Amino acid sequence: MANIQEVAKKAGVSVATVSRVMNGNTSVTSATRLKVEHAIEELKYEPSVLGRNLRNSESRLLLVLIPTISNPFYTEIINGIEETAIQNGYNILLCETDSSVQRENIYLNMVKNKVVDGVITMDPAINVNKLNDLARQYPVIQCSEYEEGGVIPYVSINNELAAYHAMKHLIKIGHERIALINSDEKFLYARQRRQGYNRALKEYQLPIDEDLIYHTDQLDFDYGIQAMRHLLQLEKKPTAVFAVSDTLAIGALKELNESGFQVPEDIAVVGFDKISFTNMTNPTLTTISQPMYKMGSTAAMMLINNIMGKKVESILLDHELVIRDSTLG
Amino acid sequence: MANIQEVAKKAGVSVATVSRVMNGNTSVTSATRLKVEHAIEELKYEPSVLGRNLRNSESRLLLVLIPTISNPFYTEIINGIEETAIQNGYNILLCETDSSVQRENIYLNMVKNKVVDGVITMDPAINVNKLNDLARQYPVIQCSEYEEGGVIPYVSINNELAAYHAMKHLIKIGHERIALINSDEKFLYARQRRQGYNRALKEYQLPIDEDLIYHTDQLDFDYGIQAMRHLLQLEKKPTAVFAVSDTLAIGALKELNESGFQVPEDIAVVGFDKISFTNMTNPTLTTISQPMYKMGSTAAMMLINNIMGKKVESILLDHELVIRDSTLG
Repeated sequence: MANIQEVAKKAGVSVATVSRVMNGNTSVTSATRLKVEHAIEELKYEPSVLGRNLRNSESRLLLVLIPTISNPFYTEIINGIEETAIQNGYNILLCETDSSVQRENIYLNMVKNKVVDGVITMDPAINVNKLNDLARQYPVIQCSEYEEGGVIPYVSINNELAAYHAMKHLIKIGHERIALINSDEKFLYARQRRQGYNRALKEYQLPIDEDLIYHTDQLDFDYGIQAMRHLLQLEKKPTAVFAVSDTLAIGALKELNESGFQVPEDIAVVGFDKISFTNMTNPTLTTISQPMYKMGSTAAMMLINNIMGKKVESILLDHELVIRDSTLG
Repeated sequence: MANIQEVAKKAGVSVATVSRVMNGNTSVTSATRLKVEHAIEELKYEPSVLGRNLRNSESRLLLVLIPTISNPFYTEIINGIEETAIQNGYNILLCETDSSVQRENIYLNMVKNKVVDGVITMDPAINVNKLNDLARQYPVIQCSEYEEGGVIPYVSINNELAAYHAMKHLIKIGHERIALINSDEKFLYARQRRQGYNRALKEYQLPIDEDLIYHTDQLDFDYGIQAMRHLLQLEKKPTAVFAVSDTLAIGALKELNESGFQVPEDIAVVGFDKISFTNMTNPTLTTISQPMYKMGSTAAMMLINNIMGKKVESILLDHELVIRDSTLG
């Protein structure tokens, strides 16, 4: 990487002048400023920014990118990341991307500018090319969502198998018409959970009825309510619903309560994640427990090892089916 | 503020040497490095760190400090901060302090190091002296929690009046034994809500029974469950419960359901905040609606105005009592 001396040489000015330009000192002429800026760009000079630790360029900060903080799924992962980071002398900066590429870029520049030592991203909508480019030079870990066959180390669960387990539970207690409330299948996890849904139906020789599959844009409660409202208008209603997120399942449960349906007697409900709310609903929600804390903790450890120059391998953690009142009564 | 030239002069070295020290270049001798480090400390030199915007020292980043991301109350405020920040060309860095002074210090140093242009803090446990010191030189806004009679501009609600309104509602529908599940009264909001609780009882000439007042260390569901379990063991049980956080109220509701009590017939429940989950519980929860989005949006606007050198005044926003099934049946 270029240093400030090289920038000064390239621009034909002194190091002090480069420093003045970078500090926004107005005593520099426009012509000189332009020369320096061009030299910085050409040499891809990235100043070590914090000046906090004078002996090395570590910031001891980790960047964590999440699509939204409104889903408790992410907040429980973050607890795992944060405690592990702190135990190892790091702190974290959380950034909500709202799945916006522009915002992602701003935050990912903090890696290049050395504001942070590395990044964990949980955003399923992230620009994969941009991320791969970044990962060539800087420590990057993907958490929960990842690229199949990609180069960036990740920690996740086996989504296909988890969805298959949820479905098998519903089939075994007698359900044949099982609706799926899925996310947009542009996301890997949504495609994988759909595969698990299909596999269970096929294994038990049950038909796949596209009318029973509903896709939502987002995962908030309201989208679960809308999805359930739609499914309740079907001529042949489902007897069970599997939602790919607890927030969607809780919305579905709410709509069933409001519409006078008994859960699980009339319609059983299964969620996904095991966020803490799922034990507060009435009835409590059967769900796939993701090891969220452990996933966060593992991601943090992988990133820290990566920062220290160690090679890290991708990991799939175990899930668990937690059977509660929404399927057992 | 000192610049790099002054540091070089003080240390008796060239600007290039100062730059080498700050970039951790190992070609500098220990003696020289020490001289430079001393000069940096004596002059309190703070390098403009991002080098991102070469023309001025703005980072266009705002720091947001929250005690925990596990409480949806904070996440809804953050949505308001974030959208307003983005509309004005800023992005935010979220930092969870877990009410740890050490972690607060690390994050607040990002203000001094110019990683961010200013800070919004929502942490009720923050070190007030440290924050006041910071606010003398840098833009700081308090959101939700604040210091009474302090110098830092804040946005909040009238907590005393809001608690009084919640209590008045319960008294008017016939309750006389009303339990209070409060937070630690070291926090201003907890003291203020307690005052509102007391005022309503006094106004209606009802006794204040200390047995009915329970304090929790934290606001998670589990603490609400524990609080309710304690209150249900009283010889003279309450007929209503007012909890100072929806998360506590939802835990209390859960414990009542589990113990076979009907809400609101046996015991009515009122929460505080109006997080989205309060509309998903069964029964739905009566609560004080805090204008969380607006509070966040107002805090962001105040901070941005402050950064632009404008004088900003503290603001108390309106709250609203939202009556739902947990008090009406």
